[in-house]
Amino acid sequence: MSNLLDDLAPRADGEIFTEVLARNGVRIERIVSTGQSTPAEKPFRQAHDEWVLLLAGSAGLRIEGEGERDLRPGDHVLIAANRAHWVTRTAKDEPTIWLAVHFT
Amino acid sequence: MSNLLDDLAPRADGEIFTEVLARNGVRIERIVSTGQSTPAEKPFRQAHDEWVLLLAGSAGLRIEGEGERDLRPGDHVLIAANRAHWVTRTAKDEPTIWLAVHFT
Repeated sequence: MSNLLDDLAPRADGEIFTEVLARNGVRIERIVSTGQSTPAEKPFRQAHDEWVLLLAGSAGLRIEGEGERDLRPGDHVLIAANRAHWVTRTAKDEPTIWLAVHFT
Repeated sequence: MSNLLDDLAPRADGEIFTEVLARNGVRIERIVSTGQSTPAEKPFRQAHDEWVLLLAGSAGLRIEGEGERDLRPGDHVLIAANRAHWVTRTAKDEPTIWLAVHFT
Protein backbone atom coordinates (compact mmCIF):
# COMPACT_ATOMS: atom_id res chain seq x y z
CA MET A 1 0.00 0.00 0.00
CA SER A 2 2.19 2.80 -1.28
CA ASN A 3 -0.54 5.47 -1.04
CA LEU A 4 -2.89 5.64 1.93
CA LEU A 5 -5.62 7.42 -0.03
CA ASP A 6 -5.64 4.92 -2.89
CA ASP A 7 -5.68 1.16 -2.88
CA LEU A 8 -9.14 1.10 -1.35
CA ALA A 9 -10.94 -2.21 -1.32
CA PRO A 10 -14.50 -2.34 -2.67
CA ARG A 11 -17.10 -1.14 -0.17
CA ALA A 12 -17.09 -3.59 2.70
CA ASP A 13 -19.58 -4.49 5.38
CA GLY A 14 -17.14 -3.50 8.07
CA GLU A 15 -14.28 -1.11 8.60
CA ILE A 16 -10.97 -2.22 7.10
CA PHE A 17 -7.82 -2.07 9.23
CA THR A 18 -4.42 -2.26 7.50
CA GLU A 19 -1.09 -2.12 9.28
CA VAL A 20 1.29 0.38 7.71
CA LEU A 21 4.31 0.11 10.00
CA ALA A 22 5.19 -1.38 13.39
CA ARG A 23 8.31 -0.87 15.48
CA ASN A 24 9.65 0.30 18.84
CA GLY A 25 6.34 0.18 20.67
CA VAL A 26 4.48 2.02 17.93
CA ARG A 27 2.04 0.71 15.37
CA ILE A 28 0.75 2.82 12.50
CA GLU A 29 -2.48 1.70 10.91
CA ARG A 30 -4.86 2.87 8.19
CA ILE A 31 -8.58 2.48 8.82
CA VAL A 32 -11.14 2.84 6.04
CA SER A 33 -14.77 3.39 7.04
CA THR A 34 -17.66 3.38 4.59
CA GLY A 35 -20.66 4.57 6.57
CA GLN A 36 -20.14 2.42 9.65
CA SER A 37 -20.62 3.59 13.21
CA THR A 38 -19.84 1.96 16.54
CA PRO A 39 -22.76 0.28 18.32
CA ALA A 40 -23.61 2.17 21.53
CA GLU A 41 -23.17 -0.96 23.61
CA LYS A 42 -19.86 -1.96 22.03
CA PRO A 43 -17.47 0.99 22.35
CA PHE A 44 -13.86 0.80 21.25
CA ARG A 45 -11.48 0.75 24.21
CA GLN A 46 -7.77 0.01 23.88
CA ALA A 47 -5.15 -0.59 26.57
CA HIS A 48 -2.76 2.04 25.14
CA ASP A 49 -2.94 5.65 24.03
CA GLU A 50 -3.95 6.08 20.41
CA TRP A 51 -3.60 9.15 18.21
CA VAL A 52 -5.89 9.44 15.21
CA LEU A 53 -5.81 11.80 12.24
CA LEU A 54 -8.64 12.05 9.72
CA LEU A 55 -7.16 11.93 6.20
CA ALA A 56 -10.35 11.94 4.08
CA GLY A 57 -14.13 11.86 4.44
CA SER A 58 -15.87 12.91 7.63
CA ALA A 59 -16.82 11.35 10.94
CA GLY A 60 -18.25 11.91 14.37
CA LEU A 61 -16.23 10.77 17.38
CA ARG A 62 -17.52 10.51 20.92
CA ILE A 63 -15.10 9.94 23.77
CA GLU A 64 -16.25 9.00 27.27
CA GLY A 65 -16.14 12.11 29.44
CA GLU A 66 -15.27 14.42 26.55
CA GLY A 67 -18.45 14.61 24.51
CA GLU A 68 -18.76 14.29 20.77
CA ARG A 69 -17.04 16.15 17.97
CA ASP A 70 -17.22 16.30 14.21
CA LEU A 71 -14.01 15.47 12.39
CA ARG A 72 -12.92 16.65 8.96
CA PRO A 73 -9.64 16.00 7.12
CA GLY A 74 -6.67 17.29 9.10
CA ASP A 75 -8.42 16.99 12.49
CA HIS A 76 -6.57 14.88 15.03
CA VAL A 77 -7.41 13.52 18.45
CA LEU A 78 -5.54 11.71 21.21
CA ILE A 79 -7.63 8.91 22.70
CA ALA A 80 -6.34 7.94 26.12
CA ALA A 81 -5.83 4.32 27.11
CA ASN A 82 -8.89 2.51 28.47
CA ARG A 83 -11.23 5.34 27.49
CA ALA A 84 -14.44 4.17 25.81
CA HIS A 85 -15.05 5.82 22.46
CA TRP A 86 -17.46 5.55 19.59
CA VAL A 87 -17.37 6.52 15.95
CA THR A 88 -20.88 7.94 15.86
CA ARG A 89 -21.01 8.27 12.06
CA THR A 90 -18.86 8.18 8.95
CA ALA A 91 -19.63 9.60 5.53
CA LYS A 92 -21.91 7.42 3.43
CA ASP A 93 -21.05 8.93 0.05
CA GLU A 94 -17.24 8.62 0.17
CA PRO A 95 -14.64 6.60 2.06
CA THR A 96 -13.49 7.97 5.39
CA ILE A 97 -9.78 7.32 5.86
CA TRP A 98 -8.09 7.46 9.25
CA LEU A 99 -4.47 7.26 10.26
CA ALA A 100 -4.07 5.72 13.71
CA VAL A 101 -0.83 5.71 15.68
CA HIS A 102 -0.92 3.22 18.56
CA PHE A 103 1.55 3.70 21.41
CA THR A 104 1.67 0.06 22.35
CA MET B 1 -3.16 23.30 16.28
CA SER B 2 -6.40 21.34 16.12
CA ASN B 3 -6.27 20.79 12.34
CA LEU B 4 -3.03 19.91 10.57
CA LEU B 5 -4.20 21.30 7.22
CA ASP B 6 -5.26 24.66 8.65
CA ASP B 7 -3.48 27.03 10.97
CA LEU B 8 -0.77 27.69 8.41
CA ALA B 9 1.56 30.57 9.10
CA PRO B 10 2.09 33.16 6.36
CA ARG B 11 4.57 32.06 3.72
CA ALA B 12 7.93 31.77 5.40
CA ASP B 13 11.49 31.80 4.17
CA GLY B 14 12.09 28.37 5.59
CA GLU B 15 10.16 25.22 6.32
CA ILE B 16 8.11 25.31 9.52
CA PHE B 17 8.33 22.42 11.97
CA THR B 18 5.62 22.05 14.63
CA GLU B 19 5.52 19.29 17.24
CA VAL B 20 2.12 17.62 17.42
CA LEU B 21 2.73 14.95 20.04
CA ALA B 22 5.67 13.34 21.84
CA ARG B 23 5.72 10.26 24.06
CA ASN B 24 7.21 6.79 24.55
CA GLY B 25 10.11 7.26 22.14
CA VAL B 26 7.91 8.69 19.40
CA ARG B 27 7.58 12.24 18.19
CA ILE B 28 4.93 13.33 15.70
CA GLU B 29 5.60 16.52 13.82
CA ARG B 30 3.96 18.60 11.11
CA ILE B 31 6.22 20.18 8.49
CA VAL B 32 5.00 22.90 6.14
CA SER B 33 7.07 23.62 3.03
CA THR B 34 6.43 26.49 0.66
CA GLY B 35 8.67 25.89 -2.32
CA GLN B 36 11.85 25.07 -0.40
CA SER B 37 14.27 22.32 -1.32
CA THR B 38 17.27 20.87 0.49
CA PRO B 39 20.67 22.15 -0.64
CA ALA B 40 22.65 19.35 -2.32
CA GLU B 41 25.53 19.81 0.09
CA LYS B 42 23.37 19.86 3.23
CA PRO B 43 21.21 16.71 3.24
CA PHE B 44 18.90 15.84 6.10
CA ARG B 45 20.19 12.91 8.14
CA GLN B 46 18.69 11.86 11.46
CA ALA B 47 19.94 9.35 14.01
CA HIS B 48 16.60 7.50 14.13
CA ASP B 49 14.14 6.02 11.67
CA GLU B 50 11.56 8.50 10.43
CA TRP B 51 8.27 7.82 8.64
CA VAL B 52 6.80 10.59 6.53
CA LEU B 53 3.36 10.94 4.96
CA LEU B 54 2.50 13.69 2.48
CA LEU B 55 -0.80 15.28 3.50
CA ALA B 56 -1.09 18.09 0.93
CA GLY B 57 0.84 19.67 -1.93
CA SER B 58 3.57 17.82 -3.78
CA ALA B 59 7.26 17.14 -3.36
CA GLY B 60 10.29 15.29 -4.65
CA LEU B 61 12.27 13.18 -2.20
CA ARG B 62 15.71 11.71 -2.87
CA ILE B 63 17.13 9.14 -0.48
CA GLU B 64 20.78 8.05 -0.59
CA GLY B 65 20.96 4.69 -2.33
CA GLU B 66 17.25 4.66 -3.27
CA GLY B 67 16.96 7.30 -5.99
CA GLU B 68 14.34 10.01 -6.20
CA ARG B 69 10.57 9.81 -6.19
CA ASP B 70 7.67 12.17 -6.61
CA LEU B 71 5.27 12.35 -3.70
CA ARG B 72 1.60 13.27 -3.78
CA PRO B 73 -0.92 13.32 -0.92
CA GLY B 74 -1.25 9.91 0.68
CA ASP B 75 2.26 8.76 -0.31
CA HIS B 76 4.43 7.61 2.58
CA VAL B 77 8.07 6.70 2.96
CA LEU B 78 10.26 5.23 5.69
CA ILE B 79 13.59 7.01 5.91
CA ALA B 80 16.14 4.85 7.70
CA ALA B 81 18.38 6.25 10.43
CA ASN B 82 21.58 7.93 9.25
CA ARG B 83 20.50 7.87 5.60
CA ALA B 84 21.12 11.14 3.78
CA HIS B 85 18.00 12.51 2.10
CA TRP B 86 16.97 15.61 0.22
CA VAL B 87 13.65 17.25 -0.50
CA THR B 88 14.42 18.03 -4.13
CA ARG B 89 11.37 20.28 -4.62
CA THR B 90 8.09 21.30 -3.05
CA ALA B 91 5.10 22.95 -4.73
CA LYS B 92 5.45 26.68 -5.23
CA ASP B 93 1.75 27.46 -5.68
CA GLU B 94 0.36 25.82 -2.53
CA PRO B 95 1.66 24.69 0.86
CA THR B 96 3.11 21.21 1.05
CA ILE B 97 2.20 19.59 4.37
CA TRP B 98 4.04 16.58 5.75
CA LEU B 99 3.37 14.40 8.74
CA ALA B 100 6.59 13.02 10.21
CA VAL B 101 6.75 10.27 12.84
CA HIS B 102 10.16 10.05 14.47
CA PHE B 103 11.11 6.82 16.23
CA THR B 104 13.45 8.45 18.69
